[in-house]
Amino acid sequence: MLKVGIIGVTGYTGMELARILLIHPRVQLSYASSRSQAGQKIGEAIPHIGDAEGLVLSAFEVEDAAANAGFFFVCLPHGQSMETVAMLRQAGVKVVDLSADFRLNDPSVYENLYGSHSRADLLPEAVYGLPELYRERIRSADLVANPGCYPTSVILGLAPLLTKGLIDPDTLVIDSKSGVSGAGREHRPDLHFPEVFGNFSAYNIAGGHRHIGEMEQELSLLAGSDVSITFTPHLLPVSRGILSTIYARPSGRSGEDELHSAYLEFYKNEPFVRVTGPEGSLPSLKNVRGTNLCCIASRLDKRTRMIVIVSCIDNLFKGASGQAVQNMNIMMGFDETAGISQTAMHP
Amino acid sequence: MLKVGIIGVTGYTGMELARILLIHPRVQLSYASSRSQAGQKIGEAIPHIGDAEGLVLSAFEVEDAAANAGFFFVCLPHGQSMETVAMLRQAGVKVVDLSADFRLNDPSVYENLYGSHSRADLLPEAVYGLPELYRERIRSADLVANPGCYPTSVILGLAPLLTKGLIDPDTLVIDSKSGVSGAGREHRPDLHFPEVFGNFSAYNIAGGHRHIGEMEQELSLLAGSDVSITFTPHLLPVSRGILSTIYARPSGRSGEDELHSAYLEFYKNEPFVRVTGPEGSLPSLKNVRGTNLCCIASRLDKRTRMIVIVSCIDNLFKGASGQAVQNMNIMMGFDETAGISQTAMHP
Amino acid sequence: MLKVGIIGVTGYTGMELARILLIHPRVQLSYASSRSQAGQKIGEAIPHIGDAEGLVLSAFEVEDAAANAGFFFVCLPHGQSMETVAMLRQAGVKVVDLSADFRLNDPSVYENLYGSHSRADLLPEAVYGLPELYRERIRSADLVANPGCYPTSVILGLAPLLTKGLIDPDTLVIDSKSGVSGAGREHRPDLHFPEVFGNFSAYNIAGGHRHIGEMEQELSLLAGSDVSITFTPHLLPVSRGILSTIYARPSGRSGEDELHSAYLEFYKNEPFVRVTGPEGSLPSLKNVRGTNLCCIASRLDKRTRMIVIVSCIDNLFKGASGQAVQNMNIMMGFDETAGISQTAMHP
Amino acid sequence: MLKVGIIGVTGYTGMELARILLIHPRVQLSYASSRSQAGQKIGEAIPHIGDAEGLVLSAFEVEDAAANAGFFFVCLPHGQSMETVAMLRQAGVKVVDLSADFRLNDPSVYENLYGSHSRADLLPEAVYGLPELYRERIRSADLVANPGCYPTSVILGLAPLLTKGLIDPDTLVIDSKSGVSGAGREHRPDLHFPEVFGNFSAYNIAGGHRHIGEMEQELSLLAGSDVSITFTPHLLPVSRGILSTIYARPSGRSGEDELHSAYLEFYKNEPFVRVTGPEGSLPSLKNVRGTNLCCIASRLDKRTRMIVIVSCIDNLFKGASGQAVQNMNIMMGFDETAGISQTAMHP
Repeated sequence: MLKVGIIGVTGYTGMELARILLIHPRVQLSYASSRSQAGQKIGEAIPHIGDAEGLVLSAFEVEDAAANAGFFFVCLPHGQSMETVAMLRQAGVKVVDLSADFRLNDPSVYENLYGSHSRADLLPEAVYGLPELYRERIRSADLVANPGCYPTSVILGLAPLLTKGLIDPDTLVIDSKSGVSGAGREHRPDLHFPEVFGNFSAYNIAGGHRHIGEMEQELSLLAGSDVSITFTPHLLPVSRGILSTIYARPSGRSGEDELHSAYLEFYKNEPFVRVTGPEGSLPSLKNVRGTNLCCIASRLDKRTRMIVIVSCIDNLFKGASGQAVQNMNIMMGFDETAGISQTAMHP
Repeated sequence: MLKVGIIGVTGYTGMELARILLIHPRVQLSYASSRSQAGQKIGEAIPHIGDAEGLVLSAFEVEDAAANAGFFFVCLPHGQSMETVAMLRQAGVKVVDLSADFRLNDPSVYENLYGSHSRADLLPEAVYGLPELYRERIRSADLVANPGCYPTSVILGLAPLLTKGLIDPDTLVIDSKSGVSGAGREHRPDLHFPEVFGNFSAYNIAGGHRHIGEMEQELSLLAGSDVSITFTPHLLPVSRGILSTIYARPSGRSGEDELHSAYLEFYKNEPFVRVTGPEGSLPSLKNVRGTNLCCIASRLDKRTRMIVIVSCIDNLFKGASGQAVQNMNIMMGFDETAGISQTAMHP
Repeated sequence: MLKVGIIGVTGYTGMELARILLIHPRVQLSYASSRSQAGQKIGEAIPHIGDAEGLVLSAFEVEDAAANAGFFFVCLPHGQSMETVAMLRQAGVKVVDLSADFRLNDPSVYENLYGSHSRADLLPEAVYGLPELYRERIRSADLVANPGCYPTSVILGLAPLLTKGLIDPDTLVIDSKSGVSGAGREHRPDLHFPEVFGNFSAYNIAGGHRHIGEMEQELSLLAGSDVSITFTPHLLPVSRGILSTIYARPSGRSGEDELHSAYLEFYKNEPFVRVTGPEGSLPSLKNVRGTNLCCIASRLDKRTRMIVIVSCIDNLFKGASGQAVQNMNIMMGFDETAGISQTAMHP
Repeated sequence: MLKVGIIGVTGYTGMELARILLIHPRVQLSYASSRSQAGQKIGEAIPHIGDAEGLVLSAFEVEDAAANAGFFFVCLPHGQSMETVAMLRQAGVKVVDLSADFRLNDPSVYENLYGSHSRADLLPEAVYGLPELYRERIRSADLVANPGCYPTSVILGLAPLLTKGLIDPDTLVIDSKSGVSGAGREHRPDLHFPEVFGNFSAYNIAGGHRHIGEMEQELSLLAGSDVSITFTPHLLPVSRGILSTIYARPSGRSGEDELHSAYLEFYKNEPFVRVTGPEGSLPSLKNVRGTNLCCIASRLDKRTRMIVIVSCIDNLFKGASGQAVQNMNIMMGFDETAGISQTAMHP
């Protein structure tokens, strides 16, 4: 059994990792840290997790951590993650980092979006952890930057068409809707229960969301040219799930079948991408809840010749902690689906 | 006091009309019909309405109806509404019809979308009941076709820019999200509570929604040329509210201020349209719940030169019953805001 | 028009008061204070309220307040309210206080539950503002202590039976469920949206809730002897509404009809209490949402001879701000239902 | 691998069984029937389940079923289940029946509550499938009647105190709240999404719920004397979860510690019962969602000498399908926790 640790276990991605790792057949959760709740039993700090064989939360110190586990998931806010990751790498252990700190290849892009970067020296070794695009590089990586939740839904939704040149990359409009857990566990006035219940709203519209940098980086690599996107995030009054509705103009005269075939071909060996065709049911949150799946459907509006793509994930699972475990599985040579092959919890 | 009647009071738009009319200062709800619950007291059939001075639901017969009220709201499904409206008009009473039956000027468009139309003879006298566009015609109308809920949010969101030629009408992408009451009160397997709770999904994508006909009719009239739209409706897991996120390319070099000014100018005397500028808060369902307001904000994404417009209404109020009362107020020469000046119910 | 002011308008009860008062036919909202948002326009501070004729929020100072309005609603947390109320009373204006500060006749009970009381001198003039019990005293009061939300649902649910001696007061079990707005607008970790969504829980069980003092005071007065209650509050994953399920043993051999008659008799002239009999529909949140109603049904379990009472209110309306306006209407000699005769907003 | 079948897979308990069994390490889901969707692939009929290795839904015929699996879960409505179970038993296969048909030892009780019983001959061999009470009998059973959801939460919540005689069985008041999936997947007007969203209500109060028969049977056996309960079910606006708040008078002078010790003792070896003491967190739906756990806390209200017990389960898991798998594990000699040791899914 691989001993694994979680840095920052009391946030939503940390909790979800604990939940997954506790039933993973190849690992033992042997270390978990929390700045605010160090010293408590995990079952007291996070009651829904149960006692996890008596695990007690630590205050992070790198020697202690590295003595107790050989693989780490870092679930700290961006900016706070980079130095912790650097210490763990220095100690010789493999890391999946769930923050934004190592996702952007160009540190100047990071600095424009998030602030200064003190460990840009590690960027060259970090691999962007989207297995459907970078599986081979992840296999040999020691540091994986786990993708953001919006980017996971969007990049997987567009990769087949951009790669094959089937859409005009200058026409991308992305309208995404996320459950509230995507904003983290910090309570904020605007996320107080009565403020969100029964509500729905857009935020950071017209270019204001930081995930745009990450999406444009990866979409540009796929397209082979610079891609700019119009991206609107919305806050859904649910706890988990992201659904992105994506609009693009076809670059040529492709019909719906050809578009659909591009998805089937691109994802034909992927265990976690489910493509539904014109006759199938459209993706919806309930079909991915608690799973590592990305469900995708594409349609062509014959009247306007616009392609409409719907891409749907569980933001905490394929959009964060499940994908982090998928990355660990690849890095460690485990069965890629180990511990993350759950069926959707519905209702 | 004007005596008013509701045909089909036990559906959601009928209920909402009753709720509004019972506190309207100029009218008395003197008649209400229901096919399935005729003979019951309104407070038994629709408990949240209360006893409404003992009103008993009737089985619709035109003589009885016309003897009991002088103004009617018809809340029947499309296809079933047209003959009832015709009978009421024949009896000489004014009508606001909340179905789709008299919204489309061209009966062949109606027939493609909804099926055959037996009373196309009444189309010429029907006025499309969006007061912000057709107030003067509504004032003298005897038959008003109350707009659909999606169309209300979309047409009001685009009217200022289309009218001024500030956007390219060939680039319209409309991503709308509606609460479940928009689908009516008929229970359906996919609208069973556990199927919707915590869920979110798109439906009728890539040109499949019938409201497209109505939107394109009105947007084309505003633009002065044929407009085709890419429209994606989504089902929000809430009871009421519609938020439409609309994307368009500017036709020229207008900046955000110029766009915003177009809205301020267009709606400067409108009691029910609230425009928020770049510094204001974005529209959200909670700010329109239970009101006749349409809240609109527009922004320009400077990176992609795409205009993003957010337009938000309560689908049962400004998107249906409240707007129907607004139309009645105009038709009858009442204060346009009588009975419908509620402040949003939040939380 | 009576000029009225709200002290603490940015909390949920303050907002709801503003919402109600803005359409009240006899008053003008001429003053509103907020410690944290003084200087802002009300429509900026609380967007769903709209601009309210340009009202700007003040930092409370008693001279300024009393110069701008002649009647005040104080919506401050318990402990903070008492001195503000005293200043306003000193300035000669009438006050409805929505906090707990003047609800308990015995200051030692207050001090056990809430902490020290610096203005017990005002307790003798304060009237407990439950119109169904104290209408005549409220009519001549200058200071009304508006009841708590749980107590409103419970006291109205039990008053007829206790008054008539139909139940054994030593057997009262009260199981109450409240929407989250009852906890106020302060964000707390346990009321962060994802913590409450889809959840349900009991809290402060086995005698831990402070509203017990208020309920026992009033129930004892009704029973004519000391009453102790077993009270369990629960947190419902909705924004508004309280439903209390109350259990009691009959004191004699009364049947269901006799119990029901006691309610009909007791509330026969009450505009805001709706009693449903054995054949009627049970109270539910949707039938009271946005109204000043208390809906009550009682049944006798013939197998166990236990009485089961269901009592339901909107916690922000009849449980707080609507009842406060009802009290103002009585104190000012207005029609008691002025401004608060809304029909329930459903769906 | 044991081949297992589900009769009636398209209802909520059938779906949940499929979800659990697909990741169970000792079984293969080799058969599933559906009257309405026979012939469809499981992934088409129930999209969230995925393709399950191509499983196609059958129209139930006993020979076909018995040829394809050796263990069956019957998920049919009460009344429809009994004959199907009889056929399967006749064919020699073991059965867990999730309906009410074999839960009541006395067929006359069944007939009063549910209607006539055509297979009372099988009642003697049926074992009530609550492992915490009947583990040994389940071990050798061929037919297990899986308990109802409300009864599971209530019986487990009371068993330690009734068994030890610590409470007076004539004083039981049970106030239960259930998510909507407990009412099944049949759509009904009152369970249409907008009717339930934001709502809360009691139903079948004062002795009207059929689960009372099952609860009184088991509670009487535990108490050693006839027990009658006052039971009020409520409909929570969530998809899954039951929380029962139970009130009882102590029979003697026991203090809170003694009560708590009775729970710890009674459940000390139980893998799926989690007892929290006075200092622990109270049970809540979020801590049991997607798990086979029953979380219980008991407190003594020192003022009124009333015991308050909170007992919480996931109605579809420990309250139905998870407990059915637990029973199978026991019947087949598998590790009792196999396939059902999930951690709660929160948020």
